[in-house]
Amino acid sequence: MSKLRWGMIGGGHGSQIGPAHRLGALADGRFEFVAGALDHRPEKGRAYAQRLGIGADRAYGDWTEMLAGEKDRDDRVDLVTVATPNATHFEITKAFLEAGFNVLCEKPMTMSVEEGQDIVRVAEASGKICAVNYCYSAYPMVRQARAMVRAGEIGKVRLVVTNFAHGHHGDATDADNPRVRWRYDPDMAGASGQFADCGIHALHMASFICDDEVEKLSADFASTIASRQLEDDAMVNFRMSGGAVGRLWTSSVAIGRQHGFDIQVFGETGGLRWASEQPNQLIYTPVGGRTQIIEKGEAGLHADAQRLSRVSIAHPEGFPLAVANIYCDLADAIAGEPRDGLPNAAAGLRSMAAVHGAVASARAGGAWVDARPPMFR
Amino acid sequence: MSKLRWGMIGGGHGSQIGPAHRLGALADGRFEFVAGALDHRPEKGRAYAQRLGIGADRAYGDWTEMLAGEKDRDDRVDLVTVATPNATHFEITKAFLEAGFNVLCEKPMTMSVEEGQDIVRVAEASGKICAVNYCYSAYPMVRQARAMVRAGEIGKVRLVVTNFAHGHHGDATDADNPRVRWRYDPDMAGASGQFADCGIHALHMASFICDDEVEKLSADFASTIASRQLEDDAMVNFRMSGGAVGRLWTSSVAIGRQHGFDIQVFGETGGLRWASEQPNQLIYTPVGGRTQIIEKGEAGLHADAQRLSRVSIAHPEGFPLAVANIYCDLADAIAGEPRDGLPNAAAGLRSMAAVHGAVASARAGGAWVDARPPMFR
Amino acid sequence: MSKLRWGMIGGGHGSQIGPAHRLGALADGRFEFVAGALDHRPEKGRAYAQRLGIGADRAYGDWTEMLAGEKDRDDRVDLVTVATPNATHFEITKAFLEAGFNVLCEKPMTMSVEEGQDIVRVAEASGKICAVNYCYSAYPMVRQARAMVRAGEIGKVRLVVTNFAHGHHGDATDADNPRVRWRYDPDMAGASGQFADCGIHALHMASFICDDEVEKLSADFASTIASRQLEDDAMVNFRMSGGAVGRLWTSSVAIGRQHGFDIQVFGETGGLRWASEQPNQLIYTPVGGRTQIIEKGEAGLHADAQRLSRVSIAHPEGFPLAVANIYCDLADAIAGEPRDGLPNAAAGLRSMAAVHGAVASARAGGAWVDARPPMFR
Amino acid sequence: MSKLRWGMIGGGHGSQIGPAHRLGALADGRFEFVAGALDHRPEKGRAYAQRLGIGADRAYGDWTEMLAGEKDRDDRVDLVTVATPNATHFEITKAFLEAGFNVLCEKPMTMSVEEGQDIVRVAEASGKICAVNYCYSAYPMVRQARAMVRAGEIGKVRLVVTNFAHGHHGDATDADNPRVRWRYDPDMAGASGQFADCGIHALHMASFICDDEVEKLSADFASTIASRQLEDDAMVNFRMSGGAVGRLWTSSVAIGRQHGFDIQVFGETGGLRWASEQPNQLIYTPVGGRTQIIEKGEAGLHADAQRLSRVSIAHPEGFPLAVANIYCDLADAIAGEPRDGLPNAAAGLRSMAAVHGAVASARAGGAWVDARPPMFR
Repeated sequence: MSKLRWGMIGGGHGSQIGPAHRLGALADGRFEFVAGALDHRPEKGRAYAQRLGIGADRAYGDWTEMLAGEKDRDDRVDLVTVATPNATHFEITKAFLEAGFNVLCEKPMTMSVEEGQDIVRVAEASGKICAVNYCYSAYPMVRQARAMVRAGEIGKVRLVVTNFAHGHHGDATDADNPRVRWRYDPDMAGASGQFADCGIHALHMASFICDDEVEKLSADFASTIASRQLEDDAMVNFRMSGGAVGRLWTSSVAIGRQHGFDIQVFGETGGLRWASEQPNQLIYTPVGGRTQIIEKGEAGLHADAQRLSRVSIAHPEGFPLAVANIYCDLADAIAGEPRDGLPNAAAGLRSMAAVHGAVASARAGGAWVDARPPMFR
Repeated sequence: MSKLRWGMIGGGHGSQIGPAHRLGALADGRFEFVAGALDHRPEKGRAYAQRLGIGADRAYGDWTEMLAGEKDRDDRVDLVTVATPNATHFEITKAFLEAGFNVLCEKPMTMSVEEGQDIVRVAEASGKICAVNYCYSAYPMVRQARAMVRAGEIGKVRLVVTNFAHGHHGDATDADNPRVRWRYDPDMAGASGQFADCGIHALHMASFICDDEVEKLSADFASTIASRQLEDDAMVNFRMSGGAVGRLWTSSVAIGRQHGFDIQVFGETGGLRWASEQPNQLIYTPVGGRTQIIEKGEAGLHADAQRLSRVSIAHPEGFPLAVANIYCDLADAIAGEPRDGLPNAAAGLRSMAAVHGAVASARAGGAWVDARPPMFR
Repeated sequence: MSKLRWGMIGGGHGSQIGPAHRLGALADGRFEFVAGALDHRPEKGRAYAQRLGIGADRAYGDWTEMLAGEKDRDDRVDLVTVATPNATHFEITKAFLEAGFNVLCEKPMTMSVEEGQDIVRVAEASGKICAVNYCYSAYPMVRQARAMVRAGEIGKVRLVVTNFAHGHHGDATDADNPRVRWRYDPDMAGASGQFADCGIHALHMASFICDDEVEKLSADFASTIASRQLEDDAMVNFRMSGGAVGRLWTSSVAIGRQHGFDIQVFGETGGLRWASEQPNQLIYTPVGGRTQIIEKGEAGLHADAQRLSRVSIAHPEGFPLAVANIYCDLADAIAGEPRDGLPNAAAGLRSMAAVHGAVASARAGGAWVDARPPMFR
Repeated sequence: MSKLRWGMIGGGHGSQIGPAHRLGALADGRFEFVAGALDHRPEKGRAYAQRLGIGADRAYGDWTEMLAGEKDRDDRVDLVTVATPNATHFEITKAFLEAGFNVLCEKPMTMSVEEGQDIVRVAEASGKICAVNYCYSAYPMVRQARAMVRAGEIGKVRLVVTNFAHGHHGDATDADNPRVRWRYDPDMAGASGQFADCGIHALHMASFICDDEVEKLSADFASTIASRQLEDDAMVNFRMSGGAVGRLWTSSVAIGRQHGFDIQVFGETGGLRWASEQPNQLIYTPVGGRTQIIEKGEAGLHADAQRLSRVSIAHPEGFPLAVANIYCDLADAIAGEPRDGLPNAAAGLRSMAAVHGAVASARAGGAWVDARPPMFR
């Protein structure tokens, strides 16, 4: 299995989403990171790309340079990720699709509906993949929820209720912080603030799990911090094609909420609940029955949920990244910058001494024994 | 930054821990997977290694072949991971250390204390890194706990209480399943069952967070399923060098527990609590004060916790792996096996139509509007 | 302190809310239950009242009889609770107020706004107490939330979000059950179903904690089970006089939710969260700071929260009712109907033997000792 | 149904447990509080008893006076509760049993095993009820757990694990507080501190749910605050007659734990978990199946759990006490001390205006409407 070639536009040093894309692309060893235009400052972008292991010839200064450089190569990238500021998604995505590249675009895909329709047509004409990073829909237990709804396990969907609320923009004294301010400035963010930023994840997930589309909606927007032109809090009621009622609340001033994304789906014969902070579990209640906890990795999950579960049931969601942190510390140590926390051979030895001590103690009816390795006594 | 070269022994097709090592090593793009002896069946191991992208010359049939093949190369691996059956850890780790390789060994590092002392001496003599995969200690908020204890933020530690309990071996009718049985057979697992398998993670973490060593202990072991020679449930009381009292319960027959690893540390001026199922949070209570929730990624964390947090505070622990799942689906799609759940351009377009619909509705006092893109009406 | 005299109208045998009123009135020993018209079937009502210890002369057949009987007594009731079907609340409450009684009326107080205005005027003219049983507002930690908001501890309120969702009417096959059906029948329930039944608890609590009134609102109602004329799911957006934005979702088809009443209040300098299923805790986050858990009974609570906490901090919310259950079993046992679970002297003895056994074992370094009392060996 | 007559010894003004006994005895209207010797200071006890509504002739100065006064009355108390300091439980309980009274004794029933045996014999000889207030065993879902175990629903019990940990004595600077100190002073508390104080609740519950007795045990006690002679932290391993393994941890220095009482029972075919902070739920996992949440009040509970559930499933555990708080405020208001939080007629009216406003808005497609009653506009 040779690796696919991957390139990224945006996501440079200090980017919030860039590291998640790199980890996402590299984690399974199926992509090789070979090209990038990572920063709007060409020199910084080229330098950072090379620090990440990209060859100098494919460390591009901007996306046009990258498009020009890649499009005629035999070993052109198999996939381009677009992780640039929102307003640029459209033209970059369109250009790469037209040149025959597969594209993964950060959300929102475009700023206007017209641009969106344009992308749909271009993608179709190109025959290439155009994906949007609604990544919450790729959690195994979200896939399980979708599969259960499609299999009729909760009956016809009556109601879907979803929230995406955080409080990270709740401090009015921080409202002029540039990392915050642009989100509520129509010149930079477009027509919508918090709903376009987080709410659309929730709306997508409602469609995704219900396997149905939003048909009409009614919205109430509020700018609870007066200096904001765009909403920092929104409630959207909607109806889906199949008749389901929808409720969506999103907020960035919900002080105390960190990652408050959850969804509940209620059908004629059952209800489902999932939350991003307990991603390992899907809560299921059959009508008239007891609530059940469906665990990631358990036997009998739908195929898509099983395929994406990665580690076996005894290991919680964050486990592989804890292993990755061990490798981080190892890389640093190999590079001559040892990290304090790396478990060493002495730690391994102490464990064995404790194991043998415990065996001896248990055999002696719980007698207290020295737990230290002889060499450390 | 050129990549470090990484090789693995064991962890082949169907292995439980192999995928976590691969993801851990590859996730940050700092290692390249270049060599492996992945299976005790030489041909299967060679084939699987090549499927994972390793060159035919470094897809080895067994670890001795790998040692011979690597030790004289200029581009020899910078790190070897040993993920073989427990009884083989000692000789492989020792051999690679003696040949001057850095080693990450799965736990338990050895079967006996004597072997463990041997490894400590060999590692020291070699000047090479010998690490043990106590990966739970690498969660950011575990590092935060350790840093807080070391900084005196809970005062002198009085008491540490830790549990690692699951129920995956609680079915007596499944006790002869080979994946279960060996763990309770002294010929294969050594002197201890569940305590050596899971309990030592908890014991290591007690030492790790308290920054102190276990001095003496008293154990009560039980084989609650009669056919088992080794314990499937254990309670260990211990005392640390600094005087702290310790309590450790571990079980594999705790039916209903999935990933039940938690630790509580109580000092003179405060208490801490962490659980593997809520890895994003460290719970802290100052004596006489209110319980506080310390969030991964928040401002003011100790340096080591901050460094290993990976994604910003608004993203929960599993987030990067959800992104990785999107890339999995993309790799499949590019390879001609499209996956149903991948969010496509139509999904991106529908979001934009909903955003603009919501803006229009909010401006019109909540009037109901069509939320569909014109092209899909 | 002599007891106050209490009477109840409605709340007879099989009533859902009657037992909670009796327990509520009797729990603190401040009221004596001396009069009642408990059932719309006079004979059943009289009989049940007498079974509950009410004298035959004050066991009334209906409320008019009770009004006539009580109004000229010197020892007339000090308080009348009205727990009859909703449509009768108005006339009963009005009549008792006009006759100079204090009244506690179940919600909703009336069916129409005009009736409600009438009650307000009558209550004011009478100089008597007219209270409505929005009992959730009497949880200690709800009082604490209100006191914190009033004291400015979260700054000016920006946003309040509250949900009251359950799934007990989610089974369409049970929709004709008379205990369910009347709630969705305008002839019996009035203009609104679920919003009038549960939503108003949430709306009252929003006003109560924010110490402000709802000024305007926009609602979306749905009857997700087709046979229902009234809504079983509702979303209400509102604005308060002080400018706060409000969001309220209520549902009776949220299958899997049991007692899903929660409220979040977000102000300029902090956020609060309370849920009826964790009533002992109020979650508080100061802007830019860590989330804190405020515990019922902790030192420094506002006076009203402290006064109503009942048992000290080491005892959870349900504790006094567990004690009450012991007394239930005792009453049965004294009445000659012994209950299996009542802890007896043998249980008390076994505990002492275990305590002394544990002391002896601990002194002997954990030696195993017989834990049984000599007389039971 | 005439009421039973109840008297209490101890539990006077400022007592921690007295209010829970009064509420417990009075809540269901089955007992009348007619006699008491509430304080070791005779005058204070007599005065407090009369404040609580007891007649002057039965407001006794001490327990001997009460015994003398009650034993020859025709209307003698049907039940005496003993809630005095631990060291006095034995002689009071014994004396009342011998005089033919039913007794509910606070735990611990006695200080020594010999005394305990004496009580068992006296109780048996008297034919009277001698109960011990292990009140946690009276939670409905604890009764459900016991019934499930007895019905074989989790098979033969293999393992029971229980914790009762709090941190209220974790402040060494408060260790001389008299309310804390006596618990660790052998002259006042007897042979054991925390294990006798809290641990025995957990040990009783293990026996209660498993319907089996503790046969032998091994203990590890620690005084983590140096000034204490008795243990403030204990671990007890035990074995039950039926072969089940037991683990019990109890602590009073677990800073941050408030009411940390929980129990897990693991059998051959299933596991159960209950915690005092989520008393409404019993968590059940059948071997090889999904975890289920059993809710207080659901259809199909065992009889004893159903009988003690008090309020229907839609009402959480604390609900009746919130209603009781409304009655507290009413009693104060009637007594001329109005409380701020009592919901009044204006609150009832505002709700009706909101309901009718919401109906109108929903009918008008979500149009914003005035939500205020006309008289308050």
